[in-house]
Amino acid sequence: MEPTFSSLLARMQELRDLQGIIGLATWDQETYLPAKADDARAHQLSTLQGLHHERLVDPWLGEALAWAAGRTDLEADQRAMVRVLTQERDRAVRVPQALVKALAEAQSRALVAWRQARKEKRFALFQPALARILALRREQADAYGHKGERYDSLLEGYEPGMRVARLTPVLTALRDALIPMVATLTAAPRQLPDLFQGRHFDGEAQWRFTLRLLEAVGFDLEAGRQDRSIHPFTGGTHPLDVRLTTRIDEANPLNALFSTIHEAGHGLYEQGFAEAHYRTPLAAAPSMGLHESQSRLWENVVGRSDAFWEHFYPALREAFPQALAGVERGAFHAAVNRVSPSLIRTEADEVTYNLHIVLRYELELLLIHDELPLEELPAAWNERMQRYLGVTPSDDTQGVLQDIHWAWGEFGYFPTYSLGNLYSASLYRAAERALPDLSGHIRRGELLPLRDWLRTHVHSQGYRLPAEDLVHQVTGRGLTDVDFLEYLRSKYGALYGVSL
Amino acid sequence: MEPTFSSLLARMQELRDLQGIIGLATWDQETYLPAKADDARAHQLSTLQGLHHERLVDPWLGEALAWAAGRTDLEADQRAMVRVLTQERDRAVRVPQALVKALAEAQSRALVAWRQARKEKRFALFQPALARILALRREQADAYGHKGERYDSLLEGYEPGMRVARLTPVLTALRDALIPMVATLTAAPRQLPDLFQGRHFDGEAQWRFTLRLLEAVGFDLEAGRQDRSIHPFTGGTHPLDVRLTTRIDEANPLNALFSTIHEAGHGLYEQGFAEAHYRTPLAAAPSMGLHESQSRLWENVVGRSDAFWEHFYPALREAFPQALAGVERGAFHAAVNRVSPSLIRTEADEVTYNLHIVLRYELELLLIHDELPLEELPAAWNERMQRYLGVTPSDDTQGVLQDIHWAWGEFGYFPTYSLGNLYSASLYRAAERALPDLSGHIRRGELLPLRDWLRTHVHSQGYRLPAEDLVHQVTGRGLTDVDFLEYLRSKYGALYGVSL
Repeated sequence: MEPTFSSLLARMQELRDLQGIIGLATWDQETYLPAKADDARAHQLSTLQGLHHERLVDPWLGEALAWAAGRTDLEADQRAMVRVLTQERDRAVRVPQALVKALAEAQSRALVAWRQARKEKRFALFQPALARILALRREQADAYGHKGERYDSLLEGYEPGMRVARLTPVLTALRDALIPMVATLTAAPRQLPDLFQGRHFDGEAQWRFTLRLLEAVGFDLEAGRQDRSIHPFTGGTHPLDVRLTTRIDEANPLNALFSTIHEAGHGLYEQGFAEAHYRTPLAAAPSMGLHESQSRLWENVVGRSDAFWEHFYPALREAFPQALAGVERGAFHAAVNRVSPSLIRTEADEVTYNLHIVLRYELELLLIHDELPLEELPAAWNERMQRYLGVTPSDDTQGVLQDIHWAWGEFGYFPTYSLGNLYSASLYRAAERALPDLSGHIRRGELLPLRDWLRTHVHSQGYRLPAEDLVHQVTGRGLTDVDFLEYLRSKYGALYGVSL
Repeated sequence: MEPTFSSLLARMQELRDLQGIIGLATWDQETYLPAKADDARAHQLSTLQGLHHERLVDPWLGEALAWAAGRTDLEADQRAMVRVLTQERDRAVRVPQALVKALAEAQSRALVAWRQARKEKRFALFQPALARILALRREQADAYGHKGERYDSLLEGYEPGMRVARLTPVLTALRDALIPMVATLTAAPRQLPDLFQGRHFDGEAQWRFTLRLLEAVGFDLEAGRQDRSIHPFTGGTHPLDVRLTTRIDEANPLNALFSTIHEAGHGLYEQGFAEAHYRTPLAAAPSMGLHESQSRLWENVVGRSDAFWEHFYPALREAFPQALAGVERGAFHAAVNRVSPSLIRTEADEVTYNLHIVLRYELELLLIHDELPLEELPAAWNERMQRYLGVTPSDDTQGVLQDIHWAWGEFGYFPTYSLGNLYSASLYRAAERALPDLSGHIRRGELLPLRDWLRTHVHSQGYRLPAEDLVHQVTGRGLTDVDFLEYLRSKYGALYGVSL
């Protein structure tokens, strides 16, 4: 079949529909799938992923993309679609099917081994499976191709366009700024309270409050939904079908509140794609870091601000009159921003969080470069924890075994969390410049001006530009730790009464 | 690729996985899909169905099936898999893609026209779209091929192996037995009460009671689930992931109670397929009529029996102490079996129900044979309603426009409802012979012996045999109206105190 743009578009739409359905099957797996159907769903997902891969590497698509790349009469968005899909296809084509299969098997085995190792609190039980995963990921990195930096080609899968040479100096500087900041805060005479011990927060009231938050940030519940799952995430099938999950813990409302705001940030990004991009490769964030910038902007920069709770705290006290009796807004705001070096990344505060990431990034580089014998990994982890955060894991489940990512084979993923933090501060700073009364809006609970500004400048751009180029277009500069560090210094200096 | 049975099996599994995922996307559409995502889901479903069709008609599969059909070393189940998939593929191959597309378009248009016609209560607005659907379905029937009876080739899509020559005499005899039976019952001095006016049945209590019923009939909620939808149905993705829906109406608990038992009957069938048949063409009922026999057996033969309520009525009264105050079991049992000729099929009782079906079957034959001008269809409908049931629709929404099936193009589907009723009575009779204390079990709320007997003799057989052959194997004879009529005469004779 001779290519035309419309036949190419039809293939793009088919691929996006399949991705959407994979999204549905995955969401369902985490929300409503009956317990006994785990294997059945694994087969179904594997079949769908196989079909998606087959359609993506189909030679006709390669010819059609090459043909389209040579056309001079395409519109800018059409050219961008061709470029994005070509990148995706080129990567898929480069990995032999045998390697894809070997990786899938190694991941299954590694997950089992990781669970067993956690149970017995012994990294050694995970080590052989991890070695296999690493060997295959190195092979895959070389198959993708790179210019001497193997990690780049893995990073490309999560943060297209980002390179180690660009990332390492930024994260190293961030690390070197955070270590003394954490030390100053933990030594400060004023320490913030931990309010949520021994109180009970009704689950239904929490659920209703999270829906109120979704409405306030402008998440469209007619083009999406919220459900419950053990690990909150954002999924869905289409920009008009965006699915958030949250987790209710009756002992601590912060789980539900902040995971709802966090996932809503992801969800607003998905709902904000331009209608003209639906069912094309442009209805996507250009990177996971940029996607994460939206969740962290809403969760941390907005959701943990004093301005935000100036509006929402009265309603929260009304929802939990007994649990929050006697807790004033100031104490609540302090409690949700308490800095405390700890062992577990997912429980870390805003200031210490990125040190957890830098540690993983540095270790991943060593592992992918094959410069750290695996038996030394736990010690290397623990030594860095002590050096960066002043704490040492009592066993491997509190250390090197805490995250599932490596068992999944996800090397190159962790740094996107820090990129999300850095981009979130820069984008919020740009929003403040563009919306002079932004903090006033937030104090009054008016969150739509910020949502709409982000929609216009970030979300609706989709995948037209690589992440850093888009950030540059919006903020006037690319990746930087300046805005994030300034944000931390100003916020935490005030909270702790110290100069940072 | 040279065929082997294992490569053929892999293709069968892929096809079943795709069907499972189509089931998920359809279930989701009726339960949790956000309002604005209708179009997106339609595209996704169309993509999945297109892929399924493409894989089914793939020439390699045809060659592999032909190769397998010639092997003498396959096991019986393997031969059955090959036979079933060959039948399905042969039908798919015979319909040109242009006709598939034209039918999909005609169905979309017909649905819109049907809704508009209902709104304005004018069949004439639906007539042109229905004419187009009929023309295309006739063309499709001829493409499938038949031996002079065009309707046979449509019927084959729902009730493989059934033929007009076999079906018409049975349904005609049924009709001729039912008309006087209805007349006798409506003229009987004793009439049964209509209890459910002006009472309120709490929705949550109804939901809890339906879950109790699911547990009692042995529907495994770890291999399935129940949700709510406007129109109850059974869907799902796999025998270990069977999804029922029910509908709660606070003014009338019978909707939820009986639709739950009805769908549970379908659900038990799906959960009862043999593990060795999972992800193959054998994990399927051999016909829609046989599937329906299970829902109707549980809903009507069991669920509307006095024995059933002997056990469950005390719990029902406990669940609705106010709404059922003063209503004794006998009155309740009478009320759920009240016979009353009415205009709407879905509200019909067990005795009048099949007259609604025979009417549709007779009209469908005329329409598919092109022997009834469409403008005369409403009058033909109304005339038969008067003749069979003694009632005449006041407008077309109460008559010819009441069902969505024809707008969907589903000609050949209606008779499977009556086949379900006939088979249900014959199978229950066989169960009574095999389980001497069956009614005692039911009186004590012990429903698992019946479920297990059905599982062994019907469900776990899957698609090894055509429906009527399987029924013959279980009951000692094939399709007959004898058991069903005897069931009606005995039950309704007693309820109304008349001889039928």
